[in-house]
Amino acid sequence: MERKLILITNDDGIAAPGIRNLVEVARELADIIVVAPDSPQSGKGHAVTLSTPLRIHKVNVFTDIESYECTGTPVDCVKLAMDVVLKNRKPDLCVSGINHGSNASINILYSGTVSAAMEASLEGTTAIGFSLLDYSFDANFEPAKPFIKTIIKDGLEGKFGKGALLNVNIPNLPREELKGIKYCRQGDARWQEEFVEAVDPRGQKYYWMTGKFVQKKENGGSDLEALENGYISVVPSMHDLTDYGLLKKLNKE
Amino acid sequence: MERKLILITNDDGIAAPGIRNLVEVARELADIIVVAPDSPQSGKGHAVTLSTPLRIHKVNVFTDIESYECTGTPVDCVKLAMDVVLKNRKPDLCVSGINHGSNASINILYSGTVSAAMEASLEGTTAIGFSLLDYSFDANFEPAKPFIKTIIKDGLEGKFGKGALLNVNIPNLPREELKGIKYCRQGDARWQEEFVEAVDPRGQKYYWMTGKFVQKKENGGSDLEALENGYISVVPSMHDLTDYGLLKKLNKE
Repeated sequence: MERKLILITNDDGIAAPGIRNLVEVARELADIIVVAPDSPQSGKGHAVTLSTPLRIHKVNVFTDIESYECTGTPVDCVKLAMDVVLKNRKPDLCVSGINHGSNASINILYSGTVSAAMEASLEGTTAIGFSLLDYSFDANFEPAKPFIKTIIKDGLEGKFGKGALLNVNIPNLPREELKGIKYCRQGDARWQEEFVEAVDPRGQKYYWMTGKFVQKKENGGSDLEALENGYISVVPSMHDLTDYGLLKKLNKE
Repeated sequence: MERKLILITNDDGIAAPGIRNLVEVARELADIIVVAPDSPQSGKGHAVTLSTPLRIHKVNVFTDIESYECTGTPVDCVKLAMDVVLKNRKPDLCVSGINHGSNASINILYSGTVSAAMEASLEGTTAIGFSLLDYSFDANFEPAKPFIKTIIKDGLEGKFGKGALLNVNIPNLPREELKGIKYCRQGDARWQEEFVEAVDPRGQKYYWMTGKFVQKKENGGSDLEALENGYISVVPSMHDLTDYGLLKKLNKE
């Protein structure tokens, strides 16, 4: 039987430790092809590059793994992978990450990692975005690996259905404190911006975006709650943004 | 009574005809403040600018309207508007557009126009993204204006609820062929990419993203169907991407 094929991408760039760890886990389960950004693309959301051309180069980053770096966003990478690199073969699964930092709750909207996975799911490929709640370069991905392997295996075996999209976040905890996998809904929160104002040598103001993540009070079952309690959160997500409740109400009036 | 306040932004840039037309309609209903990108930002989705600083400049683009241009993405503009420009006053409504071109169906995901509105809705402000199905600079916004005015008025009067998000698309038709407003769900479709390959003077390949919009077969009630039939489509949308159907199924297993 032909080995299955997994497309791997990320948003921290092809040289980040997170994607190397994801490749290490996934290569035990399937053939791998990597198409990832050539530079960090955090916060790029579902951006695509329309007004400049894209370039893609074969690179030698992972031993024995066919790999390409691309000048665009994470979503560009998936589009180029599907249409330029893979052409006539469709991947059985797309995995993105492992992101350095949380993409739980509303962070899914800003996340290049999950947007890349969403793009694959739009094309009908089951897709999973993985994030570890540790921003540092030296983040320890080891405790998460067995869980990531289980989720990828489930994805390859069709557990989530064709074209499903999962947003997976992993607490930054030692192995013995990780309590397992929990399927949850997207938690509600907001970023309270606190722009840092500075002045350049010409006397002109500029601003750095920063902010405080403020969790909203809500009933149980969210990814934020699961993460706080030591669980790996798995949020099945979708690209239909329709608010069916409000739609029904408006059509009744 | 104090006049209400509308924050206006877009993704085609502050100098685009679409935003001028939106300002003209909205200024009849409320006080206006404009914070928009200083350059075209099409396809930027929900991207935010994290690794470079942002600048914002007061400009004189619309007579008698306080206006700022910003170096970032549409979402950056809304964040800067809320936290640097407006500070202690919250807008009663945020409107984005009028986009030159469709943001119906899955285009909502790539759309800077609607993402800007979504950012305002995340902050609890009712927000509406407007798009006209005509990409050209000379697009005729006149037939759409009375409908846009109605929807903005409804938004100011609280018809959609606090923090609601609407994705409004308007067919490119003369006034007498516009059939009215229809509340709908997001239509299902995909972009079939067809990257155009070219070679630069150094012999290196590069790619332009292009594509064909392929509508999926589906039952009635979608925005794509409404637009085809001459209606202005209004899709109440939300930022909770959870697939509750799949979540229920996974938690039962």
